[in-house]
Amino acid sequence: MQKPLPAKGTRDFGPIQIYKRNYILDIIKENFTKYGYFPLETPSFEKTSTLLGKYGDEGERLIFKILKSGNFLNGLNPDKLNFEDVSNLANNICDKALKYDLTVPFARYVSQNFNELIFPFKRSQIQNVWRADKPQKGRFREFLQCDADVIGSKSMMQEIEFIYLFDNVFNDLHLNGCIIKLNNRKLLLGLCEILDCQDKFSILVNQLDKLDKVESKKIKDNLKIKGFSSNQIDSIFDLIAKSYNINSNMDYFKNFFEKSIIGSQGLHELEFIFNYFSKQKLLISSLVFDMSLARGIDYYTGVIFEVVQKNKSYGSIAGGGRYDNLTEIFGVNDTSGIGISFGLDRIFLTLDELKLFPEFKSKMVKVLFTNFGTDFTEDIIKFTTAFRNAGIISDFCPDFIPLKKQLKYANQKEITFVILYGEEEKKSKIFTLKHMKSGDQEKLSFDQLISKLKNG
Amino acid sequence: MQKPLPAKGTRDFGPIQIYKRNYILDIIKENFTKYGYFPLETPSFEKTSTLLGKYGDEGERLIFKILKSGNFLNGLNPDKLNFEDVSNLANNICDKALKYDLTVPFARYVSQNFNELIFPFKRSQIQNVWRADKPQKGRFREFLQCDADVIGSKSMMQEIEFIYLFDNVFNDLHLNGCIIKLNNRKLLLGLCEILDCQDKFSILVNQLDKLDKVESKKIKDNLKIKGFSSNQIDSIFDLIAKSYNINSNMDYFKNFFEKSIIGSQGLHELEFIFNYFSKQKLLISSLVFDMSLARGIDYYTGVIFEVVQKNKSYGSIAGGGRYDNLTEIFGVNDTSGIGISFGLDRIFLTLDELKLFPEFKSKMVKVLFTNFGTDFTEDIIKFTTAFRNAGIISDFCPDFIPLKKQLKYANQKEITFVILYGEEEKKSKIFTLKHMKSGDQEKLSFDQLISKLKNG
Repeated sequence: MQKPLPAKGTRDFGPIQIYKRNYILDIIKENFTKYGYFPLETPSFEKTSTLLGKYGDEGERLIFKILKSGNFLNGLNPDKLNFEDVSNLANNICDKALKYDLTVPFARYVSQNFNELIFPFKRSQIQNVWRADKPQKGRFREFLQCDADVIGSKSMMQEIEFIYLFDNVFNDLHLNGCIIKLNNRKLLLGLCEILDCQDKFSILVNQLDKLDKVESKKIKDNLKIKGFSSNQIDSIFDLIAKSYNINSNMDYFKNFFEKSIIGSQGLHELEFIFNYFSKQKLLISSLVFDMSLARGIDYYTGVIFEVVQKNKSYGSIAGGGRYDNLTEIFGVNDTSGIGISFGLDRIFLTLDELKLFPEFKSKMVKVLFTNFGTDFTEDIIKFTTAFRNAGIISDFCPDFIPLKKQLKYANQKEITFVILYGEEEKKSKIFTLKHMKSGDQEKLSFDQLISKLKNG
Repeated sequence: MQKPLPAKGTRDFGPIQIYKRNYILDIIKENFTKYGYFPLETPSFEKTSTLLGKYGDEGERLIFKILKSGNFLNGLNPDKLNFEDVSNLANNICDKALKYDLTVPFARYVSQNFNELIFPFKRSQIQNVWRADKPQKGRFREFLQCDADVIGSKSMMQEIEFIYLFDNVFNDLHLNGCIIKLNNRKLLLGLCEILDCQDKFSILVNQLDKLDKVESKKIKDNLKIKGFSSNQIDSIFDLIAKSYNINSNMDYFKNFFEKSIIGSQGLHELEFIFNYFSKQKLLISSLVFDMSLARGIDYYTGVIFEVVQKNKSYGSIAGGGRYDNLTEIFGVNDTSGIGISFGLDRIFLTLDELKLFPEFKSKMVKVLFTNFGTDFTEDIIKFTTAFRNAGIISDFCPDFIPLKKQLKYANQKEITFVILYGEEEKKSKIFTLKHMKSGDQEKLSFDQLISKLKNG
């Protein structure tokens, strides 16, 4: 019989992976709380009407649809089914879909509960999302997103708050070398305005978004093919180069963007942020302006962020940005918001490679009672229970098998101590405690045992 | 525009619900760890081949199937599709399904990793499962299961361990009045053997399983309709009545089951457990024998458990039992196991009604900086950041709106203190701290503020 496997692009997580993931998640959650982002959880699937039409064609192809329960053909006439239009057919036989991100369900929640919510409304959300992507290293079909958003205020104080939040999380994770990149969609819009190519804004965002994976020569070629002139391309890349050194080039930028109202506004917003952080220090991260930062997602309209770790090439480990009218899709207008997201899988890979995870020894079994047969069974359960009630992670061998096998079991499970409890020990009420690594044994009373195991 | 709603049978969870759920889950997790049940997580969906054929016809109808990505008709000839056989058609266009329980994916995991696992293998698993059930009070289409299982040992010490685990969890939850009901599938098998109705074992289990919802008269009628004789029915219900008082009736039971090897064995196993607990005390629960306990799920073969809270009628809040050869379905034989499951939603309802949840005040925002305009913006962010770095959950008003509105916002969000920071305070570096409930104000330096907010 062939061994059954998990579905493509999905993973099982064992204890150590779970402890490591929770180590990251607990730090993120703690900071979300400290910053007043309270948790929200939405269902794993939504009505298709909630999700469809929100992610563009490319995103929509990646949504997992759930077949209607019962007779999914109910109400459909088989003779009239159009087998050419597969996508339409799918929407006829599926009425639910797994969530593709946390943002659209969040927008659904806000619009549904609009009258009860208190604005500015801050929420965090840490849940799985699903995408029918081609699986590859670090990319899965089921993965956890860790989001925080605040909606209902246009204040730039929120942008500064999120920069601090990034910094706090990575500081708590002891992850040195984090670079928080900043840009503003308004600058990119202004740029297109000034270069007179507003119609090609999406193409530009799309191409810039690939700059961390594709060399710039290739991006320039692509832009040319898509109809940008050489002059336009030179201007764009000149501005990108100058952005890395904004302190010296601020006057140049001011001049350049003077001709565009939205561009000037974008620059002014960034200046507010950089001005603030010229006086205030971050704990562990550095903050840089990067005019090439684009964020491939359509709904951003203002400041955008991305965090990278400078020595590791897993791409961004966090990101986000400001969006206007995200909830517009559900009929609620004028609710500017800003949100960020931590990339758990990439943070995991980075910490793992840099050996930044703590040990999880305290979650392992500390002591194992060996089993010398039915005469001792009741005592063993009784003592193990007393240990557990004292907060000691402990276990027993449920079966009377050769002692050698019991010790092997303890070793395989990396248990620190075993207790030998046989005829002699039962009579004397003195237990033999064996340290598995050193092989040392000592004789202890029950109270001594408890105190040794609690502290040792 | 109509407000969008979540899909039928699913729920959004806000902060308080999440804190309450996590309060229960943390206690369950802590005990799982203390007992050496280490966490496992499996994907939300499995290949249909893994899930189908495992839950019987009734269960299988409730499995949510996921449409193949891309052209789901690929390889199918539309002309040859049989629109009458909807279930077969579904299996042709779906290759994945949401998990229906945690047990089958666990069995898949064990069989897949059999050679690497150390037996007895103990694992806990707390994850969502999905069922296309008709939603009703306390029953949802997406819900969390909290399981612990140990496989690879036939020792009755495991049964005793799980009784302690139940008791520990409910003790930590301060849930008085829990009754742990015990029975043994072997007794029910033996009963059918002795009454010469082995062919009707499943019918008996199925009917007994309904006894907590349906009155016994109706169950007796059902049994009659299904072919049980009046004598058989009388014997069954006589035995059930006697089981509630096993101490006085043990001899009767021994006599009764003498004629059946499996029945005697089942009684002997229960005797071992009751004998143990006649000498050892549980912390909060009482342990009773209930011959009517059946557990409707097919795979149990030995001792079965169910926990109810005596004053609340939400049905069982936990359950479980021993099963032989669960992994047989995936080609791995002879791995007897035993597992339990906590019903989060029902425990939630019970604690909520009995007002047994703690307060979550410590997770709320403690202090809010009011906003007196752009002159104060930078200071406010700076101070709030210092508070957060000191571990105080704090926030600011991002917008310069009338103070009255800011105070209303603080009240709505149940924030304990606000800080007034205007012209005067900026000059004197003395802050005005206002207690929202009492209206009291005091003047404090920054250091005094921090120390007051950390401790007060």
